[in-house]
Amino acid sequence: MSSLQPRTLDPRLDLMVDRIVRVPPKVAWAAWTQPEPLRRWYAPSPGTVTECEIDLRPGGVFRFVIRGPDGNESRIDSCYLEVVPYQRLIWTNALVAGYRPALDGFFTAEMTLQERENATLCTTIAMHRDEDDRNQHAAAGFHDGWGTVLDQLGAYAPSIKTDH
Amino acid sequence: MSSLQPRTLDPRLDLMVDRIVRVPPKVAWAAWTQPEPLRRWYAPSPGTVTECEIDLRPGGVFRFVIRGPDGNESRIDSCYLEVVPYQRLIWTNALVAGYRPALDGFFTAEMTLQERENATLCTTIAMHRDEDDRNQHAAAGFHDGWGTVLDQLGAYAPSIKTDH
Repeated sequence: MSSLQPRTLDPRLDLMVDRIVRVPPKVAWAAWTQPEPLRRWYAPSPGTVTECEIDLRPGGVFRFVIRGPDGNESRIDSCYLEVVPYQRLIWTNALVAGYRPALDGFFTAEMTLQERENATLCTTIAMHRDEDDRNQHAAAGFHDGWGTVLDQLGAYAPSIKTDH
Repeated sequence: MSSLQPRTLDPRLDLMVDRIVRVPPKVAWAAWTQPEPLRRWYAPSPGTVTECEIDLRPGGVFRFVIRGPDGNESRIDSCYLEVVPYQRLIWTNALVAGYRPALDGFFTAEMTLQERENATLCTTIAMHRDEDDRNQHAAAGFHDGWGTVLDQLGAYAPSIKTDH
């Protein structure tokens, strides 16, 4: 499989987490792009994904709700920008579905899957408008949060049926 | 030529201007997507476009500077989202090149070209996050500004060489 590279990081503005996941890119892709598999790993435990809506095309909605252990819910409403099956997904919460500007978005995410021997390297990059937003996102737990959920993806993905 | 329809307007959040331009869609497309033709009509006269950079692909930059008659310059930095040759162009100033969130963007624009007899219907829609932004954009002269430049496009476009 040819393979798209993750973008070059701007360390002043971007945050990055990657993990090796022991499934082929096709299975990792299903976990990222279908509501039912995504709900199983996308909230840092003991949080849970209580809602998830995916319209997998540029301009389509990516919306989910995470309920924390305290019962508080966070809703994240994003818009897909690029969808390259099994390789790359880009979305932003600076826009909502149909590309309309969002009320309070602050990051664009790029997720890249690269095939490795019997596995996939999954790289997630969050891009911000300025250093303040980047640093606030880091302080709010970006690395722990995304690192945790990618670990959860790694634990869960091998059980995904390939007909997903 | 098959033809994409403009999106359905949300009158609470969107603004729209359209004009018939007496050239084929291919020529109107050149006027919208190449710096030299675009500079000839994109600033409401007597303003001028003093800089223009176009990287015509999703995620590519669309950046221009307009100098007003008072010498003041406005720089608009946007990111293309969809590029459907001769039919549809979508860009936003809520993101900059590479889809990075912008510091102060507030609209997404959709420009649609539909073939008519010996002419093209050019429809531009600006989408906003809320009614305040829409109303401010309207008060700042959206209809006059975009109406004026589409009239200028109509006057200029017939002189564009088709090898553009």
